[in-house]
Formats: sequence, C-alpha cells, structure tokens
Amino acid sequence: MSQLDDDRLFPTEPAVRRMARDLYEGVKDLPIISPHGHTDPRWFAENELFPDPAQLFVTPDHYVFRMLHSQGIPLEAMGVPREDGGKTEQDPRKIWRLFAENFYLFRGTPSRIWVEHAFQEVFGVVKRLSLDTADEIYDHIADCLTQDAFRPRALFERFNIEAISTTESAIDDLRWHKMIRDSGWQGKVVTAYRPDAVIDPEFDGFTANIATLGDMTGEDTTTWTGYLAAHRLRREVFKSFGATSSDHGHPTARTEDLSQEVAAALFDKALRGACSAEEADAFRGHMLTEMARMSLDDGLVLQIHPGSFRNHSKDIMARFGRDKGYDIPTQTNYVSALKPLLDAVGARPDLTVILFTLDETSYARELAPLAGVYPALKLGPPWWFHDSYEGMMRFREMATETAGFYNTVGFNDDTRAFCSIPARHDVARRVDCAFLATLVATGRLAKDEAPDVAYDLSYRLAKDAYKL
Amino acid sequence: MSQLDDDRLFPTEPAVRRMARDLYEGVKDLPIISPHGHTDPRWFAENELFPDPAQLFVTPDHYVFRMLHSQGIPLEAMGVPREDGGKTEQDPRKIWRLFAENFYLFRGTPSRIWVEHAFQEVFGVVKRLSLDTADEIYDHIADCLTQDAFRPRALFERFNIEAISTTESAIDDLRWHKMIRDSGWQGKVVTAYRPDAVIDPEFDGFTANIATLGDMTGEDTTTWTGYLAAHRLRREVFKSFGATSSDHGHPTARTEDLSQEVAAALFDKALRGACSAEEADAFRGHMLTEMARMSLDDGLVLQIHPGSFRNHSKDIMARFGRDKGYDIPTQTNYVSALKPLLDAVGARPDLTVILFTLDETSYARELAPLAGVYPALKLGPPWWFHDSYEGMMRFREMATETAGFYNTVGFNDDTRAFCSIPARHDVARRVDCAFLATLVATGRLAKDEAPDVAYDLSYRLAKDAYKL
Amino acid sequence: MSQLDDDRLFPTEPAVRRMARDLYEGVKDLPIISPHGHTDPRWFAENELFPDPAQLFVTPDHYVFRMLHSQGIPLEAMGVPREDGGKTEQDPRKIWRLFAENFYLFRGTPSRIWVEHAFQEVFGVVKRLSLDTADEIYDHIADCLTQDAFRPRALFERFNIEAISTTESAIDDLRWHKMIRDSGWQGKVVTAYRPDAVIDPEFDGFTANIATLGDMTGEDTTTWTGYLAAHRLRREVFKSFGATSSDHGHPTARTEDLSQEVAAALFDKALRGACSAEEADAFRGHMLTEMARMSLDDGLVLQIHPGSFRNHSKDIMARFGRDKGYDIPTQTNYVSALKPLLDAVGARPDLTVILFTLDETSYARELAPLAGVYPALKLGPPWWFHDSYEGMMRFREMATETAGFYNTVGFNDDTRAFCSIPARHDVARRVDCAFLATLVATGRLAKDEAPDVAYDLSYRLAKDAYKL
Repeated sequence: MSQLDDDRLFPTEPAVRRMARDLYEGVKDLPIISPHGHTDPRWFAENELFPDPAQLFVTPDHYVFRMLHSQGIPLEAMGVPREDGGKTEQDPRKIWRLFAENFYLFRGTPSRIWVEHAFQEVFGVVKRLSLDTADEIYDHIADCLTQDAFRPRALFERFNIEAISTTESAIDDLRWHKMIRDSGWQGKVVTAYRPDAVIDPEFDGFTANIATLGDMTGEDTTTWTGYLAAHRLRREVFKSFGATSSDHGHPTARTEDLSQEVAAALFDKALRGACSAEEADAFRGHMLTEMARMSLDDGLVLQIHPGSFRNHSKDIMARFGRDKGYDIPTQTNYVSALKPLLDAVGARPDLTVILFTLDETSYARELAPLAGVYPALKLGPPWWFHDSYEGMMRFREMATETAGFYNTVGFNDDTRAFCSIPARHDVARRVDCAFLATLVATGRLAKDEAPDVAYDLSYRLAKDAYKL
Repeated sequence: MSQLDDDRLFPTEPAVRRMARDLYEGVKDLPIISPHGHTDPRWFAENELFPDPAQLFVTPDHYVFRMLHSQGIPLEAMGVPREDGGKTEQDPRKIWRLFAENFYLFRGTPSRIWVEHAFQEVFGVVKRLSLDTADEIYDHIADCLTQDAFRPRALFERFNIEAISTTESAIDDLRWHKMIRDSGWQGKVVTAYRPDAVIDPEFDGFTANIATLGDMTGEDTTTWTGYLAAHRLRREVFKSFGATSSDHGHPTARTEDLSQEVAAALFDKALRGACSAEEADAFRGHMLTEMARMSLDDGLVLQIHPGSFRNHSKDIMARFGRDKGYDIPTQTNYVSALKPLLDAVGARPDLTVILFTLDETSYARELAPLAGVYPALKLGPPWWFHDSYEGMMRFREMATETAGFYNTVGFNDDTRAFCSIPARHDVARRVDCAFLATLVATGRLAKDEAPDVAYDLSYRLAKDAYKL
Repeated sequence: MSQLDDDRLFPTEPAVRRMARDLYEGVKDLPIISPHGHTDPRWFAENELFPDPAQLFVTPDHYVFRMLHSQGIPLEAMGVPREDGGKTEQDPRKIWRLFAENFYLFRGTPSRIWVEHAFQEVFGVVKRLSLDTADEIYDHIADCLTQDAFRPRALFERFNIEAISTTESAIDDLRWHKMIRDSGWQGKVVTAYRPDAVIDPEFDGFTANIATLGDMTGEDTTTWTGYLAAHRLRREVFKSFGATSSDHGHPTARTEDLSQEVAAALFDKALRGACSAEEADAFRGHMLTEMARMSLDDGLVLQIHPGSFRNHSKDIMARFGRDKGYDIPTQTNYVSALKPLLDAVGARPDLTVILFTLDETSYARELAPLAGVYPALKLGPPWWFHDSYEGMMRFREMATETAGFYNTVGFNDDTRAFCSIPARHDVARRVDCAFLATLVATGRLAKDEAPDVAYDLSYRLAKDAYKL
C-alpha cells in the first residue's frame, strides 16, 4: 500500500517509460550534491533529536503552512510563532491533525510527493495521511524521532549526502560551522556567503550591520575601501569553512558598474540612511559587480536569486515577520539588467555566475540566450515555486535548445526541510531521466549518450560548477 | 459519420486514455453550473423561438466572425449591424453559406469543437459543414428552430443546467429577470452585479449613468456617501434576483485603498469629467476595494476580469461599436496591483475574490503563488482566448503545483452563445479528466482520489465558490 | 549507423507516430519555398566551390560558435575575423577539431540535428562527430567540396528549392542578383528589401546612407518627399530582381502614424544626427507605416522582425563587430505598439504584414488574437532561437487555437547556413506533422483533413503569403 508509484514522473508511453527507468536506475543511488540550501548548521553541530513530527513537517515549512492558510486556517493554528510572542498552538498533535485533515489540499502539488517520499523512505510510513491515520502516523514518526538513527548526522549519512551547503549572513559568527569542524565528524557541511544584510541599504538594520562587519574584520567599514576590504576578509573566513559560493537575493536582477567615486558616494549615503529607493537599487546592483570582481580573485561562485516580492502581506509581516509564505514572484528582466556586470566580467571563463529566476518567461527569451553565449554565465535549476515536475520539465524544454545541458549546473534543493532533500533530488533525477528518454525516443539524443547526460545532470555538473 | 470523436481531448497513450475515459464517465452527466456568462435573460423571460441558424451561430458570435473577418471578409457580410444603420447582409442563408465555405478556417480551434458539438448534440447534425452541406444543414437547423423543443427554456432543461448567471449593468432594470421570476418557471437564472458603467470614469456616459443610479435608488449620487449607499442598494436588488457575485472588467488589475477623503475628491472630479487617465485608473482601483468591503457585508463573490484592450481598431469601433472581436489581451501585473486590496481584505476567509487573466504568464509566476496563500483569493478558470484544450491544459499545468485544486473554482463558460454551453462544459470536463489521468499515470495523484477531484472540478467547486 | 532516427520528432505513442509518419510521407519531398533568409547571393552568382568544412559549418554559423564560446573558447580559435584584422585561427582543420571535440555541447539542441542532417543527406557522413572521427569526416567533406556536385547551384537543385529569397540592404547594388539573372541559370533566387540602414537614425552611417540612396535614385533625399520617392524607386528595382517582400528589424514593434509635417521634421532632425533615442524610435515606427502604405501600391509583403537587443557585449562588438552571437531577445509588446499602423492600414485585405517575435509570451496573448482578427496581419513562423522542435511545438500550441492555421505563413528557414536549409525545412515538416497527428488523435481535426493542412503548412501557405 505504498503511496509512491515506482514509475512516478516517468513518461506514460511504455517504451519511453522503460528507457527513463533504465536511465534512472543508473543515477538513483548517486551521492547527493546539495550546493545551495537553507538547512540549519546547528542540526549537524549539536546533532540533537528533532523535537516532534509537527516541528519537522508543518510549522517550519512555508510550502505546507501557506497552503493550509490559503484555505482560511490561521498561521497560529499551525504553531507559527508570532512576533509579539502571542499565543499560538503548542500541541504538536493538534497541529498534526490539522495537517492530516487538510492533506487533500496538496493533491497535484510537489509537497505531496516530498512528504510521502519522506514518510516512506525516512520513516517507513506507507499509509496515506488523513484524519483517520493521523494519530498512528504521528506516533510512529514521534517514536522514530527518539532514536539515534534519526539524529541529523545519521540522516545525513543515510541520505548519502556527499556535500551540502548552508547559507549564512556575512555577519553570522559561523559558530555552528566551527562546532561541526571541531567535532571531528566527517560530513561535508559548508557555508555560503550571503551578504544581503550588509549590501542592501533597505535591509533592516543596515547601518548597524555594517558596524558589526567592521567589528568582525577590524576594517573601518565607514569608508568605501574599508567596506570592500571587510567583504574580502569575510569571504576568506567563509572559505575557511568550506564556502565555494556567494548568494544574492535582490528584488531585481539589476547590476551596475559605477566608478569607484560614485560607488563610494552612494555607500556614504546608504550609511547615513539617505538613499532613495532608486539609489538603494543602484547600490545593490553595483555591489553584484564588486562581488563578481572579488570572485575573480577568490574563486567563489556568484549566485543571483532575484525577483521575489518579499513579505507581500503587510498584516502577516507585522504579526509574524519574514518568510511566512508571502513571498511572491515578479516579472524579472535580465537582458538590460545584467549588461553592466556582463560588460565588466562576463567574458571571463574563470568566473562562474549562476542565474536563477522565478519568472519562467525568461528561460527561452533571455536566460538561455545569455548563458548560451557568455563564458561566465550558467543557469541554475528551477527555483522555489518551480521546483516541481512541471516546473523542471518546462525548464528543460525552454532552456536546453539554446543553452544546451552544459551551461546548466544540475540540481539545487534550496530547502530548509531536511527530510525533503532525498525526495527533491529524486524528483529532479526522475524528471531529467524522463526528459532524456523523450529526447532519445524522438531522435534528439543518441541512446548511448543519454546515460552520460543523466550522470552529469544528477551529479557531475553540480559538483563541478560549485567546486564541491 | 459523427464529426465528434468519442475519445476527444483524452491522452493518446491507451492506458491513460482508458483512465481519462473512466473519470469522464463519472462526471459527464453532472448538472451544469454556469456561474459566470453573458446569455441574454430575455431568452428565458420571453421563451421565444430563435430566429434562424445564422443568428444562432454566426452573427452574434465574435469567435466566429472575427476568424472570417481576419481573412478579409467584411463584418457586413456576416450581418453584423452597423452603428449608422447602414446596409448589412440580411439573408441568413447567404450568411450561413459564407460560414460554411470558410469553416475550414476553424481547423484546430475550439470554435470548431463547440460548433460541431452543438450541431450533433443539440440538432442531431453529424455531417461536416462545407459549401456542399450548407443548405442541408441550414434547412435542418432552421426546421428545428420552429419547434417548441428548441425554445430557450426547453434547451435550458435539456442542457441539464442547474443554475446559470447572466451579467447585468448596475443600472439595468432587470426586467427580464423580473419576468422570469414572475413566470413561475423553475429554471434557476440569476443575475450578477456589473457596475463598470458607474465605476469607470472613462465609460461612455459615466455622469449620466451616475444620475440614473441616483434615480433608481433615491440616493444622492452626487455625493460620495450617497454614491456608495446607492451601490449597496443596487447590490441588494441584484441579490433579490439571485445574484451571488459582482464582476469587474477593468483595463488593469490595479487596486487602491485610498482614504475616504481622497476617494470622495476623486469621485467629485470624475463626476465633473475632470479625471486624468491616471486618476480614472486610481478611482477604478479604489472602487474594487470598496466593492470588496461591501462583499464582506452582503456576501457577493467579487470577480476581477482585467487586462483586455477593448475595441482595438478605431475604424471598427466607429463603424460597428463595442464587442466586435477587436478586444486584445495585454500583459497584466497582479503582484503590486492587488496589494492595496489584499492588505485591506485579503486575509478574510469570509470573502471570495476570484481572479481571471488573459495573460497566461501570470499563472505560475503571480496568480498561483497569490491564491496559494491569501485566504480570500481563488483562481478563475482559463478565460476567453484560453477557454480551449491547450489553454486549459496550460492552466492546470502552471497553476496546480502551487495553488492546488482547491484554490480554483471549477469552470465558467462565460459565453453569449447559448448552444455552446454544453460543449464548453464538456471540453472542460474532458480536459480535467485528461489532466487527472495523467497525474495518476505519473504517480502524482492516487487512483482512488481522482474521481473525487473530477467531481469537484466539474461541479462542486463552482457551486461552492459561487454559492449557487 | 546513421545518426538520424527515421522517426525523429514524431510523437512517441505508436499509433500517433504512424499517423505522423504517414502525413510526413505526403510532404517530405515537396519543393522548398524559402521566402526569408540570409544566404549569400554571390554563391549562386559565381557558383564557386565552398572553401573548406570549417568555413561551411563553424566560422560563419553563430549558433555553432556561440555555444563553444559560452564554454570559454575564444572566437579567435574558431576563425571568427577580428575588426582590427588581428590574428585568428587560420587552419580549418584545427577549427574543425575544436568543433568535433566540443560537439557534445550540442546535445538536445537544434544545431545538432541540422549538422547531422547536412552530414548525412548532403555529404553521406553517418558517423558521429567527435575527436576520434574529426579527421575522417573533415577529409571526406573537404573532398566533396572539390566536386562540381557540391557547387552552390548544384546543391540548390539537389535541395529541391523552388524559390529562395535573400535579403539585401536598400542601398545594396544587387550586383550578385544581376549576375544570377544574366547567367541564364534558372534557379529562382530573389531579393528582399531591407531598408534598416536608411530608416534607422541610429544605424551606423545613417546620413551617408541617405546620401547614397539619393545617388542611386536621382532623388533629393535631403527632403522628406524625395526620401519617400527614393524608397519607392528602390522598391521597384528590388521588385525587378524578384523581390516580393520588405523586411524590418527594429528593436521594438513600435509603429506611428504621424502627420506628414511631423514626419518630415523628424526626418530633418535625423539627417542632422539630432534625434533623441525617443525620436529615432518614433521615426522608425512611422516608417513602418509608410512602408505599409507603399506596399498597398506595389504589393510587397511587409515583414516585421522586432525585439532583438543587438550586440549585447560591448567587448565583443568592439573586437569582432556585429552578428557574433550576442543578440539577445527582449520582451516585446505588440498590442499598443502596432495600433497606429493597424488603424492606418490593418483593415486592408490587399495588404500582408507578417509579424515575427522572439518573445514567445506574445503568441497566445497578443499575436494570435491580433492576427485572428485584422485582415492585413499574418504570423510568421517561430524565429531564431525558437526555430526548433520545442519552439515550433509551442508556437502551434499557443497560436493555433486563436489564429487558426490560415493566419500563419508556413516556414522560413531564415538562415545563412546553406547546407542547413533542407534540415530546417525537414524539422518544420516533421513537427507540423507531429502536431497534426496529435490533433487528429485527440479529436481536434478530422483524419481526412490533416493531409491538406500538412501540404498547406509545408508548401502552399509560404508560396501564397509571399507571392512566390
């Protein structure tokens, strides 16, 4: 009574399905390279037991709670903490029952596949979640969570993760990464340099963050040159904790390549909190080019994740804070936006800039044509709302003909939901094998080449592009 | 020699096709819920015979006459009336022959399926329309149209329509709805509140319309508060004729939530015909939020149909007037446009705002992410040019993974072509069953769940969302 | 050991595949109509041997060299000439080996199919290109290129080209076309009128070009009326060399219909190099409407190819000049942009305006609705980056339901790669047959109609629309 179809996500025509299955057999057990994501390094540092099923599957997973919320269920009922410390549901079993009762809402969504994959492969649960089975499944998972085999490091090893990257703020003290290193545990958990808090003049506490950056580095970050030097030093510290990439989550893909004088003046203005919205945007855009120049020196891969309208609901932002499922994709232009950065460094084959998008219309129109010619550019995998069967298939269908496979970088799970990592990589491998089998069946790829491409997409490209 | 394939619109792989067919068997005979459309209530009020085949299939159907026109056939030749009362073709048989001769133009279009479905299921015509068969088919349909069994109410019952909504202007006198109610006929024909004529400062005769609104309600509609009160009263009158929804066809999805002072000042300006284009747009945007607030009180579902560039051809508008096939979709932004309304009322689970679009790029990027989190939002079905096999399939593929099925509201036929109603619902049911069968075949939905979802999409969701 | 699957690009379900294959059998040997492209008329004029395999397949093909370049290979290494005459690779065999070594980059791209089709069908090469086979294939093709059977005219005849159009600047002297005409050779090679150099105030040497136009026509092109008269004369000259179309490659789809006074003033300003970017854009836009008016008199079909951001890389433009693979598609609006031209001439059934796009989002939203109603409008086939299996399939899926087949104009290969012409038309025919077979299998087209449509799409529509 498994909820998982062995042939899920494969083409329906039997001969093509067999081909996809054969390709998948060749890659399904490859180690996981997870070069970009948001797991908590504290898990691997402390290796504590996870608290309960609701804390693992519901309360921290914005894919899950946003769907229940969309049907009128208050975030409080799912235990999402309030900014004012007000009352929220504390009984994990009640939260679990709410999840179970509304599990039908996930029909046809990737969350359904991720949850059922984790149920079966991580916890051995093969029944479908519903109000009828809620308690039984809760008890079973809760019992598992008391066992050493379900501690973070044990799961890390069971998941066959060869390398995983977390993401930390430029002014994070990286204490959990230190603790992992000091522990002697051999799991490869690296950090990534995310400097939004000290690059975005509109970030909460920007000026204070810059001061912290100064304290951490001993540089005078009230000056433009000191500020840049501080970035260089922090990047080195991050590299010492394994970082091979930086990551930038700006509202748009805008880049600038300003003169140092103009940039310095903007930085002064930003420090004084005097930037207009336009100036803040220009400063963020210029800093992408500065980051790219630093990458030429220190080798960090530059990731750009643009185009999310963060915290769209004023009310939810006020009551619950950031990252509560209210980030909405927006139209994103890349062609003129990236030109300043590309004119500066796009021709450099020793630089890797990985572009992501939440605007699928840019795949065939902008991103594949750009990545299909600029030596420095590569395309990241389908991101966030598009990390799904249809989303991945559209990406391959719209990007491959112009960018090919070798200007892409394999899969990112980009998740904070630890147990979904094997599920997400499994989905990606299945979809890629389905796509490749279809190419072979329609004479667009030779049969003997497909296994190589499947290996590249499942493992090698991510490892190479991110230098892991 | 039927022109209709019994398995039309189902997947081609035999096993998946069987699954789609089984699902379809379970829903094909469900009653029709038609919660949004443009049928003429006069038909059901007077129950007169339809005049002739050309008047039923050609002259009033903009899908049909725009295609012939695109190949150089003047609208006059299809009997479309001129604004100046000038000469147009009056012989229905001549118009019919023109349609027949050019019927090949509809190859691959939904109109072809709708027409052939109506021919066969309504009139028993199974030959293909061509110049050879034009007269025979004309005579047969013309003969049918003389029979009581083809009167509007008889067809309504034969079509198994459980409830249908027409759409009337806020200042319509609803006489036909009165006549239907007074007739004692049991067919459920309700109205919907469409106030564009008294909300859009750029609408023909706006100021006069506002005066009429005052006359109809006894409110002083020269004042902002009187104007709002008049809306409330008209909504109550519409509700007394069964209305469960309002509908708003604005050029953009812009909303505003202005202070009452600013709104009142804008209204004054609008009454004086002194609004700039920007101010008119702001006023329309603010009125959507006012309408939403009234919905919180009176329970009407709010529908937004934005993004059509109406009457694109200056010449056709001058000679033939509105709604002559020259409305063209435009790019439509929802994320920032809807924010004021959503900040005001988006969190309310007791409100239903149904969003439509003519810009398919917004499905995955904006609409599904918005409807997948805001309690008040639901997604309307593919609209107008997208009410078709490919259009519906793209909607499901692009919206489902993020919004799920339960933030959608089933099907709207949105038509003024009465005989196409069963055809359109049949297409929607077939496409949904095809989509669901594909989900099952690819392990994205359990086989035992699919019939429930098919039922929901074909019947329950429309009935529930529109409170019919 | 052919690299080409006989059933390539056909649907995978066996019964639908058989239907596609049958349709394809009926059209695969039809003559090629190539109504728009960039082959060099000098080839057919002089009928010289092609120099070597690298000059035929690598150095001039921007699809090929951009892909290798995207992986860090300098353009110099592929023999692409530098603007400063600096050193580039001159050894064709070395260039060929580089191509062979990197041929895996084209997996899943249309270039792979085009190259392998040309290898097999033109040169009888059936091995896959790799470093192992590079020399053997090079030697074989090089040997072929010494034979008369591989001269341009012989290949033209072997390719079964019924008519081909090249594209020349308005101020080209058409010497090669004269030479073809004078040679007595019967191959139908016509020109097309491309006046960007004398219409776009931002074109290199605009004022000098206008002077040349004056010299060629004897008109005083320093005056607006003389300038328009010169266009009319050049169009007549082009027509005398077979031209049936003009072509316009503007950055946007903007049109204007200015008064003659305003247009004349803008023209003066343009001649003086004093136009702002906005004024230059307005002038280009107005000239499209002037060209359309001339088309009403002289019958040339008007083609609009908008929306490419040309020469995106400043560095590559400076070092290698135009057309080096760095043209990137941009978002393109048609609805408001085309209104002035459409209000002026869109209702004319004796005019043909063919619209192209690099922005696929406009297919269903803008282009199909426009072409599905305006008598003068037709849709060109998928262009440039979209001239591929997925690109063509998306075009049919997104345009057909609203525009039908008969507001489209068949296929354009648009290529400067001579040997790829049969391959490209073969791909188009296969994809169209695949699409039609799918329509039949899903009950959206009758089986007996499909062969007619296949014939129309493969041959008749291009011939008729372009009057060839």
